[in-house]
Amino acid sequence: MKSLREYIWMETKKRRDYVNITPRVEEIVRKSGVKEGLVLVNPMHITASCYINDDEQGLIQDFDEFLEKIAPYDVQKYRHHQTGEDNGDAHLKRQLFGREVVVAITDGKLDFGPWEQIFYAEFDGKRRKRVLVKVIGE
Amino acid sequence: MKSLREYIWMETKKRRDYVNITPRVEEIVRKSGVKEGLVLVNPMHITASCYINDDEQGLIQDFDEFLEKIAPYDVQKYRHHQTGEDNGDAHLKRQLFGREVVVAITDGKLDFGPWEQIFYAEFDGKRRKRVLVKVIGE
Amino acid sequence: MKSLREYIWMETKKRRDYVNITPRVEEIVRKSGVKEGLVLVNPMHITASCYINDDEQGLIQDFDEFLEKIAPYDVQKYRHHQTGEDNGDAHLKRQLFGREVVVAITDGKLDFGPWEQIFYAEFDGKRRKRVLVKVIGE
Repeated sequence: MKSLREYIWMETKKRRDYVNITPRVEEIVRKSGVKEGLVLVNPMHITASCYINDDEQGLIQDFDEFLEKIAPYDVQKYRHHQTGEDNGDAHLKRQLFGREVVVAITDGKLDFGPWEQIFYAEFDGKRRKRVLVKVIGE
Repeated sequence: MKSLREYIWMETKKRRDYVNITPRVEEIVRKSGVKEGLVLVNPMHITASCYINDDEQGLIQDFDEFLEKIAPYDVQKYRHHQTGEDNGDAHLKRQLFGREVVVAITDGKLDFGPWEQIFYAEFDGKRRKRVLVKVIGE
Repeated sequence: MKSLREYIWMETKKRRDYVNITPRVEEIVRKSGVKEGLVLVNPMHITASCYINDDEQGLIQDFDEFLEKIAPYDVQKYRHHQTGEDNGDAHLKRQLFGREVVVAITDGKLDFGPWEQIFYAEFDGKRRKRVLVKVIGE
């Protein structure tokens, strides 16, 4: 069995941002030499999500508005802020969009449908964070 | 290490539908010959989810009503529709129910609790789509 | 390839509860002897979630209030209750928080960021339930 663990470093300019990381995951899969296996992609932080959907700007704005409506940024609202934080909304947004994606590797490539793209969704950005990519297989 | 990648083809008659695909996944696991490992099950499309829950019709209606209330079908509502699509609701429903499931294989079988069943949830159907099943292990 | 399947038994005193199971998963990973691989952690029941987030009590209360607001416990509300159940809310809460987590194992340890902790979220407790932990790798 082969395996490889790599990081993708992120630092978004905006508090909330949506970054297509598919090419960087593809590169790590290539580097791993794994032909048949799985790749796990997850933020190492708890106010961000990795998810798979279309790379279309209108859709991304729809996602962002939906999340902001359902779990708004609000310094007064969350009990978590008694610790001095202001990112209670970001933890909730992350719960709704999930933490990780697991993708099949077949014949050395991400085994994707035509519109599948891996996104890093940042809900509390403007600082350096890491995405973990773990490849296993052979 | 053994691996197998197979597709399950879907074409629902309704725009939204919920299909129990457990027997078809079991069959693929059997075919793979994997005794200990993992199986990944995900739609290859971005307006559908695979999820695990009970096969009970009242529950499925509850799920559908919940999703339609929180992310309604509405041609006017979504920015994504500026591309000519009408399925912004389906992308959101998929985000909430997630993309994939990962299931343990133990002794050649899906290692499930008594009520766990794998569903394909279609949110923009009436066309041919694929579910990817990837088995790895030995 | 090595593999190990173990259960973590749960019986919460409250109907809804959030239990940090990280040390128990770490112990199982250690026992497996796997140095590089993946670990899958999921409830075997369909009214509970495993998720990864911070172990902070205010945050956990925020999560619980959010879920109760969006999918309230209500004996009248859900079609699923025509079967005699009263846990329709719990199935929905589980769908929103997801079923499973998949975590990388690197150098024999859970490959985690500084705040990542694995939680078992119970939405219909006060009875014995199991969490499945499946380790694969080598």
